[in-house]
Amino acid sequence: MITSIDETLLLGPGPCNISNSVRDALARPLLGHLDPGFLEIMESVKSRLRRVFDTQNAVTFPVSATGSAGMEFLLVNFLEAGDTIVVGVNGVFGGRIAALSEKLGAKVVRVEAEWGRAIDREAFCEAVRRESPKVAALVSGETSTGVYQPMDGVGDVCRESGALLFVDCVTSLAGMPVHIDSWGADIVFSGTQKCLGAPPGLAPVTVSNRALEVYRTRSRPTPSFYFDLDAILAYVDGEGGRSYHHTAPISMVFALDAALGEILEEGLEARWKRHAEAAAYLRSELGEMGFTPLVPEGERLNPLTTLRLPEGIDEAAIRGRLLTEHQIEVGAGLGPLAGKIWRVGLMASNAREESVDRLVSTVKGILS
Amino acid sequence: MITSIDETLLLGPGPCNISNSVRDALARPLLGHLDPGFLEIMESVKSRLRRVFDTQNAVTFPVSATGSAGMEFLLVNFLEAGDTIVVGVNGVFGGRIAALSEKLGAKVVRVEAEWGRAIDREAFCEAVRRESPKVAALVSGETSTGVYQPMDGVGDVCRESGALLFVDCVTSLAGMPVHIDSWGADIVFSGTQKCLGAPPGLAPVTVSNRALEVYRTRSRPTPSFYFDLDAILAYVDGEGGRSYHHTAPISMVFALDAALGEILEEGLEARWKRHAEAAAYLRSELGEMGFTPLVPEGERLNPLTTLRLPEGIDEAAIRGRLLTEHQIEVGAGLGPLAGKIWRVGLMASNAREESVDRLVSTVKGILS
Repeated sequence: MITSIDETLLLGPGPCNISNSVRDALARPLLGHLDPGFLEIMESVKSRLRRVFDTQNAVTFPVSATGSAGMEFLLVNFLEAGDTIVVGVNGVFGGRIAALSEKLGAKVVRVEAEWGRAIDREAFCEAVRRESPKVAALVSGETSTGVYQPMDGVGDVCRESGALLFVDCVTSLAGMPVHIDSWGADIVFSGTQKCLGAPPGLAPVTVSNRALEVYRTRSRPTPSFYFDLDAILAYVDGEGGRSYHHTAPISMVFALDAALGEILEEGLEARWKRHAEAAAYLRSELGEMGFTPLVPEGERLNPLTTLRLPEGIDEAAIRGRLLTEHQIEVGAGLGPLAGKIWRVGLMASNAREESVDRLVSTVKGILS
Repeated sequence: MITSIDETLLLGPGPCNISNSVRDALARPLLGHLDPGFLEIMESVKSRLRRVFDTQNAVTFPVSATGSAGMEFLLVNFLEAGDTIVVGVNGVFGGRIAALSEKLGAKVVRVEAEWGRAIDREAFCEAVRRESPKVAALVSGETSTGVYQPMDGVGDVCRESGALLFVDCVTSLAGMPVHIDSWGADIVFSGTQKCLGAPPGLAPVTVSNRALEVYRTRSRPTPSFYFDLDAILAYVDGEGGRSYHHTAPISMVFALDAALGEILEEGLEARWKRHAEAAAYLRSELGEMGFTPLVPEGERLNPLTTLRLPEGIDEAAIRGRLLTEHQIEVGAGLGPLAGKIWRVGLMASNAREESVDRLVSTVKGILS
């Protein structure tokens, strides 16, 4: 059964298609999670993630669960009941940061923007100055709306206000510029199934030294076993020996290492450019057919383009036919954008003209 | 680099080696997590898990993280701050249930046994009767000590006392008898990298209707986003449509489905018998060399045998040489058993005489 299904072109919000070398890495024979050969690969992943995040942070590794778990890992370790968090909310993922923070007993201050627009930096910084929160959170790439958040100057304001800058880089990392250290970002997570070009299953995170110092002053232990930073570090860092915490998802780590190797071989700047060109081509080609971008120029996320459909098109029906008849997946709108937009991902190896051509010609065929 | 490493024989506490068909499944092209083709595989996994757990529980699925996350998923949903939990502690994994319960603010009553012995059922049941706890927890297969916990009668006492019976089946599932429904177990988790013969990365769980009723009476929302039962069910169950919660680890689900298919093809009873025979052969062969079982007969976990080493053997040195010179992994002792025992796993496809022969002849060669 397994080999009889042909490959679907994954142009939704992720996962995207993965390369043959990543697939080979997945299928590699297992090693034990304390095997020196595996630990070497884990070290390679950590080192390569630092380059992709553009950070010197020692604490940089993949959390052993999917992207959303990266958010939980960061909040559960760096935010305590009674703390304040300022969150930019302009889509599903900012909303999730706010919702989990509330569940954890924090005071949540939302800085909102219309879905499809970036958070106003001045309004966000003003809230940070006013509240002096423990954490200030922004979504770098809002997967629900296709917005890329400008980050300039935010890190400085967070430092002045004593706030840790939390950034969700799930859909931006390796597809658009991400500069953790020069942004002054302190606690950051991503996912493997977007522009990193690996399967879903790991949440790369990076933590600044400043954030580690804040962590050391927690008043209560982290209310989690699986996401407990110190316990995880005893395994993934292991200065003076590795302590067992959980059994790392070996095959996923193999795959991530292979995917990161491909990224660094291509070069980050070349990769960002490739994503930008593919997105521009998509907007132009679908623009000619009457699709209009949800997000204004200058705030667009290249790995994921959101488009309003031409009048009179039954988006769900066409999206369904694309998938079932033509094996092309595109994403639906979420929340208030459900039924109104498509989310078209051109991520990792899919960020190229051929993907766009196949999508556009197929949509034309369906509509004709 | 990836293909140049030969296959290591994984005879530690897991992961074990995986079959070629599981490796092929891992390497399969990705599908979207809402693709009907993927959801069909998810349904297959749920249905096959029910057969392996021997349960009719509708709520049976893999949590999207490694085995330890299964424990956290269950405790965070079914135990609240202020609740009481009775925990059998006779090794690392019972200790973890107790420790996380404390972190979550529960009152923890430990029923202890020596490491290497089963929990005394009468003492455990007596504590359950006395405390009428929200949850009563036992470890079916203690991976740190190699003990298989007898379960007869415990479920009845839990029901009479209004307690949910929590069982850790990480190392027993598919390697020794596990009968969730006839045990009267309510909330149960396992891991994929032991006798299920899949890579680490998923935590199969099953939840009784009785437990679901208790969950509906929570006084506060589950203090987690990633492990929130209702939010996960809206995706994995999806009666009336699937809601996005997180991106499922597609490749891992493919692999688990393939592994479960192999298990059901072999048949559970045949598989338990194969694990029992392999373990008996191991104990006999290593017994002749002076290795002595830690666990008395009748309490032994067949998938993982724990053995004290003969006098005068430097266990760490030999274990190291087994791995680095001969590509055979065996497990070290944990906690008070560190340096004193080996943990030898014969799990899934490794549960056969050939694995034992290779280990025994290699150890003999090193010692001679």
